[in-house]
Amino acid sequence: MRVLTGLQPSGKLHLGNYFSAIKKILDYQSKEELFLFIANLHALTTFRSKEELKNFTLECAIDLLALGVDPQKTVFWVQSDVPEVTELTWYLSQSITVSQLQLAHSFKDKVAKGFVPGAGLFTYPILMASDILLFSAEKVPVGKDQKQHLEFARDIAERFNSQFGSVLTIPEPDIDENTATVPGVDGAKMSKSYKNTIDFFGTEKEIKKKVMSIVSDSKAVEEPKDPETSVIFQIHSLFLSPNEKELQIQKYKRGGAGYGDLKKDLLESILAHFAPYREKREELSQNLDYVHQVLKEGKEKAKMVAQTKIEDIRKVLGIYPF
Amino acid sequence: MRVLTGLQPSGKLHLGNYFSAIKKILDYQSKEELFLFIANLHALTTFRSKEELKNFTLECAIDLLALGVDPQKTVFWVQSDVPEVTELTWYLSQSITVSQLQLAHSFKDKVAKGFVPGAGLFTYPILMASDILLFSAEKVPVGKDQKQHLEFARDIAERFNSQFGSVLTIPEPDIDENTATVPGVDGAKMSKSYKNTIDFFGTEKEIKKKVMSIVSDSKAVEEPKDPETSVIFQIHSLFLSPNEKELQIQKYKRGGAGYGDLKKDLLESILAHFAPYREKREELSQNLDYVHQVLKEGKEKAKMVAQTKIEDIRKVLGIYPF
Repeated sequence: MRVLTGLQPSGKLHLGNYFSAIKKILDYQSKEELFLFIANLHALTTFRSKEELKNFTLECAIDLLALGVDPQKTVFWVQSDVPEVTELTWYLSQSITVSQLQLAHSFKDKVAKGFVPGAGLFTYPILMASDILLFSAEKVPVGKDQKQHLEFARDIAERFNSQFGSVLTIPEPDIDENTATVPGVDGAKMSKSYKNTIDFFGTEKEIKKKVMSIVSDSKAVEEPKDPETSVIFQIHSLFLSPNEKELQIQKYKRGGAGYGDLKKDLLESILAHFAPYREKREELSQNLDYVHQVLKEGKEKAKMVAQTKIEDIRKVLGIYPF
Repeated sequence: MRVLTGLQPSGKLHLGNYFSAIKKILDYQSKEELFLFIANLHALTTFRSKEELKNFTLECAIDLLALGVDPQKTVFWVQSDVPEVTELTWYLSQSITVSQLQLAHSFKDKVAKGFVPGAGLFTYPILMASDILLFSAEKVPVGKDQKQHLEFARDIAERFNSQFGSVLTIPEPDIDENTATVPGVDGAKMSKSYKNTIDFFGTEKEIKKKVMSIVSDSKAVEEPKDPETSVIFQIHSLFLSPNEKELQIQKYKRGGAGYGDLKKDLLESILAHFAPYREKREELSQNLDYVHQVLKEGKEKAKMVAQTKIEDIRKVLGIYPF
């Protein structure tokens, strides 16, 4: 089954990204035919500077390769390297109405927050549909906030097929209701916009500082502590095997370990878990030619699929040359 | 000065097209650096069938070449042959707001007519801006109905330049207030949508039938007639030199010539005027390989300009590869 997913290049990855998106990507890679792209065209809707976009794009590639994306197994490319996606966006624009786009939650939310919406933000779901349909994705993992966009993609594909002939694959959503919400250092959902993240590719010092800043109650060292309500434990449990988890629960409950110690335990787990990835990342950062080469090969594979599809689409529309 | 203009492939050309758009195109060709394209991507917003789009695209090319578009002087291509225009459309989408697009007259008019607007119709001014800006057009001829769209293109370019750096040329409109409105056979403005056109590349029989159907009053043969109020004369005068025009006015005024005769005079003028073009058109229809070859060469010239520009634009945005 062909699975497609894109990741916006948005700076340093944090534990929230890792335990939701990244783990899932690696899981797909081992089981399905995975198409994975860095969504730098989408990132233009929240553009800050060209330097940032360049850095984030390259870092995103390095991060993913360091974490285990395998270009032998996965088609891995940068979105802008296959501009056919923008051509398809225009074709698909005829198969969705303005009123439908106005119903997009993500759009309505931004407008409600007083954001003056650009046309890019408004038509972004069409570009997303194009990402999916250009590569004939059968399955697309979506978070709750992206469910509606996937519905748009399905709807566009169905309308297109019924008007022009069946050339587009209708994608199925893969909604993982079980994905753990990773809490940030303040206990709220870990998110870049809340500035409560633990960025696992930061320096050890940065990671330590973040871990040490996790909220806790004011129980003294000797008091028993409740792992269920501890943000430290909630994050830590993501790294622990069932056995290790049981041991840690006992450590919380029997008292005698202060929150400082428990945070040190968590820090150790984080550093141990990411040590090989951090090493690999360092290696890749020293070898950018290799990274660019990987992306180039990914581009070529993606482009082949895209060109065949865009030819089929041009044919049913009567686009020159014919 | 670089002038850019596009023509939607919309079927048989009529005298209205000829005396406004086509004559202007030929005039530019002799005086300026002309970029002329067949706007088949725009035509998708009013798509009927792939056969129609294919036929119209090819016929549009044949028509223009027959009428004197000279591929040695003019860069002449089909819009879809340079898909960079859709890539730029996405970039430009960040530089215009949804509220601005909602102000577009052409959009508001269609909505007022009860049309359910597709996203393509809504974002069409961005594609048009992209056509203009991709080729660094300095001057764009616009009819009154397109004035606002050119304003959008200027506005987008200014906003883009101020945000990302000056890479886009701000186009100037060339509004020809003097363009004669050609009346149709019913006296209303000649327009495909009113079904009142005289299609000069039709068969002689078809043209004759159309000319003979031009409205007139019921004055008898011997009565003097008023050329000023005669639709036959209004159309005819477009073909006449000042001297010929004077003679024809006298023929109307002195009486003795019936409307049937006056229509025959008009028919003769039309056939005489278009005879060489009709012949050339026949020749081109027998030699489609040549037509495709011309379009291919035009594509190559246009693509070179487009690629240089899109590279510049990618650079200021920080688009991969860098």
